[in-house]
Amino acid sequence: MKAVVFAGQGQVRLADVPEPVLQAPTDGIVRVERAAICGTDLHSVAHPVNLPEGFVLGHEFAGQIVGLGDAVQGHRVGDRVVGADFTACGTCWWCRRGDHWECAERRFFGTGSAFGPPLPGAQAELVRVPFADTVLRPVPADVSLDAAVFLGDTLATAHVAIRRAELRPGDTVSVIGGGPVGQLTSLAAQACGAGVVILVEPVESRRHLAAGEGALTAVPERARGLVDQVTDGRGADVVVDAIGGGIGLDTAFGLVRRRGTVVSAGVHTGAWSVPADRAFADELCLRFVIGDLMRHGDELVGLVRSGAVDPTVVASETVALDDAPEAYRRMAERRTLKSLIRL
Amino acid sequence: MKAVVFAGQGQVRLADVPEPVLQAPTDGIVRVERAAICGTDLHSVAHPVNLPEGFVLGHEFAGQIVGLGDAVQGHRVGDRVVGADFTACGTCWWCRRGDHWECAERRFFGTGSAFGPPLPGAQAELVRVPFADTVLRPVPADVSLDAAVFLGDTLATAHVAIRRAELRPGDTVSVIGGGPVGQLTSLAAQACGAGVVILVEPVESRRHLAAGEGALTAVPERARGLVDQVTDGRGADVVVDAIGGGIGLDTAFGLVRRRGTVVSAGVHTGAWSVPADRAFADELCLRFVIGDLMRHGDELVGLVRSGAVDPTVVASETVALDDAPEAYRRMAERRTLKSLIRL
Amino acid sequence: MKAVVFAGQGQVRLADVPEPVLQAPTDGIVRVERAAICGTDLHSVAHPVNLPEGFVLGHEFAGQIVGLGDAVQGHRVGDRVVGADFTACGTCWWCRRGDHWECAERRFFGTGSAFGPPLPGAQAELVRVPFADTVLRPVPADVSLDAAVFLGDTLATAHVAIRRAELRPGDTVSVIGGGPVGQLTSLAAQACGAGVVILVEPVESRRHLAAGEGALTAVPERARGLVDQVTDGRGADVVVDAIGGGIGLDTAFGLVRRRGTVVSAGVHTGAWSVPADRAFADELCLRFVIGDLMRHGDELVGLVRSGAVDPTVVASETVALDDAPEAYRRMAERRTLKSLIRL
Amino acid sequence: MKAVVFAGQGQVRLADVPEPVLQAPTDGIVRVERAAICGTDLHSVAHPVNLPEGFVLGHEFAGQIVGLGDAVQGHRVGDRVVGADFTACGTCWWCRRGDHWECAERRFFGTGSAFGPPLPGAQAELVRVPFADTVLRPVPADVSLDAAVFLGDTLATAHVAIRRAELRPGDTVSVIGGGPVGQLTSLAAQACGAGVVILVEPVESRRHLAAGEGALTAVPERARGLVDQVTDGRGADVVVDAIGGGIGLDTAFGLVRRRGTVVSAGVHTGAWSVPADRAFADELCLRFVIGDLMRHGDELVGLVRSGAVDPTVVASETVALDDAPEAYRRMAERRTLKSLIRL
Repeated sequence: MKAVVFAGQGQVRLADVPEPVLQAPTDGIVRVERAAICGTDLHSVAHPVNLPEGFVLGHEFAGQIVGLGDAVQGHRVGDRVVGADFTACGTCWWCRRGDHWECAERRFFGTGSAFGPPLPGAQAELVRVPFADTVLRPVPADVSLDAAVFLGDTLATAHVAIRRAELRPGDTVSVIGGGPVGQLTSLAAQACGAGVVILVEPVESRRHLAAGEGALTAVPERARGLVDQVTDGRGADVVVDAIGGGIGLDTAFGLVRRRGTVVSAGVHTGAWSVPADRAFADELCLRFVIGDLMRHGDELVGLVRSGAVDPTVVASETVALDDAPEAYRRMAERRTLKSLIRL
Repeated sequence: MKAVVFAGQGQVRLADVPEPVLQAPTDGIVRVERAAICGTDLHSVAHPVNLPEGFVLGHEFAGQIVGLGDAVQGHRVGDRVVGADFTACGTCWWCRRGDHWECAERRFFGTGSAFGPPLPGAQAELVRVPFADTVLRPVPADVSLDAAVFLGDTLATAHVAIRRAELRPGDTVSVIGGGPVGQLTSLAAQACGAGVVILVEPVESRRHLAAGEGALTAVPERARGLVDQVTDGRGADVVVDAIGGGIGLDTAFGLVRRRGTVVSAGVHTGAWSVPADRAFADELCLRFVIGDLMRHGDELVGLVRSGAVDPTVVASETVALDDAPEAYRRMAERRTLKSLIRL
Repeated sequence: MKAVVFAGQGQVRLADVPEPVLQAPTDGIVRVERAAICGTDLHSVAHPVNLPEGFVLGHEFAGQIVGLGDAVQGHRVGDRVVGADFTACGTCWWCRRGDHWECAERRFFGTGSAFGPPLPGAQAELVRVPFADTVLRPVPADVSLDAAVFLGDTLATAHVAIRRAELRPGDTVSVIGGGPVGQLTSLAAQACGAGVVILVEPVESRRHLAAGEGALTAVPERARGLVDQVTDGRGADVVVDAIGGGIGLDTAFGLVRRRGTVVSAGVHTGAWSVPADRAFADELCLRFVIGDLMRHGDELVGLVRSGAVDPTVVASETVALDDAPEAYRRMAERRTLKSLIRL
Repeated sequence: MKAVVFAGQGQVRLADVPEPVLQAPTDGIVRVERAAICGTDLHSVAHPVNLPEGFVLGHEFAGQIVGLGDAVQGHRVGDRVVGADFTACGTCWWCRRGDHWECAERRFFGTGSAFGPPLPGAQAELVRVPFADTVLRPVPADVSLDAAVFLGDTLATAHVAIRRAELRPGDTVSVIGGGPVGQLTSLAAQACGAGVVILVEPVESRRHLAAGEGALTAVPERARGLVDQVTDGRGADVVVDAIGGGIGLDTAFGLVRRRGTVVSAGVHTGAWSVPADRAFADELCLRFVIGDLMRHGDELVGLVRSGAVDPTVVASETVALDDAPEAYRRMAERRTLKSLIRL
């Protein structure tokens, strides 16, 4: 079958690879009809961790089930489904608590071994899905696959950031970063009780997109002024860092009000110096989150099905699988926001 | 000053009445710039409870502070404010808990003694406001008084219904009744995380209004079919009864799914036969709520300020105070949904 | 194997029955080391619903896994486990939401078809457990089986009553009924933030037990007086009806304060007349609950393991399986509170 | 009147000072019957910030109201009350939200200007209390003043740490530090749903106290081993840092499990290097809290009144006001845990 594979540091290519087969009775095989390219894919390719050449990339996918192991209970061949971007067993202490990310069976699709043992990815005609009962979620007929494909990672991440922010209705939310997660965080906030949402982003086209989708926007250097204006000088009730790293947290702490919450939905690779004296005096909360379709999938389906959130706004281009390698390049060069792959 | 007063059962008229004066150091006097007519006003006039002729009516108001007792700390003369529809002391056990409705100092503006000792109403040029620190809430410059006037009762009621419904994001919400509270409940639900919202209402114009504001709508006899269609036959996760009485609860119980929540935001004047066997087997929750600007005012301001909720959609006509008696008649005849009074 | 079986209306007897065998790859077989007799057992025997003679009774059990189907992932043969009192698939929309009771695969052990298709019970040497991954919960080495056996029903029910009561720390909780569920509700409340707990019960020995375990107690006719005394006349913040039926709810509504919560953890077989006028004016909440080890099992283990709750206090006698028929009689005659069966 | 006053760096003495008088209509005067000495007092004396000689010290007090300004509504002369350790207006945006610490009217009793403009303290025969309606809380007849005096700071701090920890019933809680706040955090955790509580403390007598009050205890170097033992190696669900500074947070992060919560209830005076990479990968939450009697007073009264929490266990000695200077010395030398002053 055709697949997008790793082709050496910084390189991807289309390849013909063997079709995946069921390996365990809890497995499923999905015929991928939609995939997407994520910043994490770009990162994996640029900074590979135990990623062999020829390894199938990609962790966002939606499509149709074409094979199921004997032990799968909740799905049928032919079902339309979306997959989480990582796997979990569904039965351990962590999974019972809804904390699938901590499951010992965690593998992240298509990224080498950065987040668990390697598991071939989903930018391919077929993908094998371990623990299909847990990892796959049905897509109702009235939700398009174009939308569903974003539930597995981008929208799941945006959603958990808002879900754990202890938002009160009408709260002012600031989102740091207008990438795909930042854009959908703005939408999730608006759908889930925020008052004013302010997205902070240096790139004009990304601010333009966010503004068209209901947020106020600001370049970083003018963010505090705008936040103060709508909060009578107090600062944002909730700030979501959708960038990661020290710069994301520094910016977030610069905007959050006393007794506010900072949610970090970005990746961190080292330590960060938290101003504990201020955090104490101002009773701040700092929370790190990772998206989880397995936990929040039914919520996401409800929000998308009703039109409350339309995740397709982040798909700045739609390509065929054959064109995915070029789409990687365009995203890496920041000429596109996010690529949707239609197979 | 001019005021709308009770003129015998079923009758109201414009009258000239003495201006209110400060009676306690915690009082404020508000020059009313916006008032509104509520179904509760119609009910008080039709079924008066210790309501003397000449009593000033009305409990929804926004305007400017023109007088303050010495003990008021949080307001200044000249402030733009909206008032709650009832009073509370702000310091007792109940008020500390946020349950102002249970305060021993509860009086309801302009309604006789149905809900506490009588207190002259707000459909007048001036209104005296006991416990001004607690009862009045500032209106920011970017919130219009046309919107603010609905925060004191209609939107507060709609909001608390959703706030206490334990809504999860994406949940399907059904609202029984397309009166002003029902319409704003639909908006509050959409702003605060609902997926599909289905408003159930026999009157076509009210369904039309709700549909234009984002809800699906149904006449009562087709409601279950529509709910089933969007919930795969399960029923609504949350049902808000915005009618009251047995018919509201019967309809609500007919639409709620197993393990769902029914919130009653309507008035009840007697007992109701709850199907306890089904409620037990299906683990239902039934919750009665009353709006409270004092508790949720800052949340309401946040939602309105950002445009997340626009409460003015329920103002089907705007009249001068002189025309208010006619506006009462039109509302009673159901020719209008709700009248906004501009002074 | 030996088992306690139905022997005609009002009758049970010890019988020799065939050993259960694995029927599905998700099944487990448990060698029962502890079982218990529940009021539901007495009810099933007294009022049988499609309960054939010779049917194995009982739904509370703990023991050791001796057989597992191929599809069971989370358990091993030899594991010490406790079972829920009913089954659920673990993968459907309801189960994903934690609402296992609503699962289409619900069967209640040992009770005929009152709560789903019949499933042989656990007062036997062996019991077959469908959906073992979901229905069985591991018992850590530092939790005794004497305690674990009560997690499946009695403590799960008591716990969910408190869990869903929206208790604030220090709240006054009243529990209606000093049967096994009432006793453990008192303990769960004390462990989970309650201030004063008042157990209402006419039988002296049951009041005595509760008083020894930290509750204040009252006969029904003196309950309101005692509640008023500790709440400055307001009424209980939370009332749990652990009796069921109209008498339980009537008593509960007589004790709950304004803006309080009534949780019904008892069985209801018909309608009940809720005083909707008062419930509206006082903003009450009425919630029906059913225990669920599958949802709350890890919480229960945590509470029991630490000694925060000791469920064995309800075991007023311990018998061998051979003596279980006599123990049924003693419980039916209210000479015992609850019988623990050690095999 | 007699009072404990600052006498130069590191020194306190008993002095005769003028009696306080009402300065604002919202003031109250309390005749102090119980006061206490806090670590913050020791710190203020050792590291004074705008603390003039002769300034009255102390911020923990309970007693009887002997004077009230005209604008105080909720108290009467003669009432038994406990005071918060700081003041707040009760009506601003922050106070309405329950975040009194952020109020512009914040003053901390008896500590110079470290936390707001100076306000004379409560280790004296009388204390003036600004905003008496907000700052004072009634003490019911069945709560002793010996217990009540600890509600204003020590127990309020312990309580908020647990209240904001998002504890699930049965969770394992570790408390870093066996000082007064740590000891009461252990009690608050046990009363509010914790399973096992593990207090980490190098000083044997403090471990002994905690063990006698229901906690497991460990010296720091053995803490992780003990936590692992009771959590099957996962780590504590919740860790409360009751020390502050980098050492408190380092220890806390060493004990918390993945997806766990660290609550910092200690003072911080600079930055701290948070391991953001681990915090991200493990989805941690870090929350800073400050006690607030004004917010949680009714909860605290409920817990103490019922015996669920007995805060007097931290009073390792009881002294007269005349002996307070000596008691300061003993506490500074760590010969006592905390001194209760009876006037």
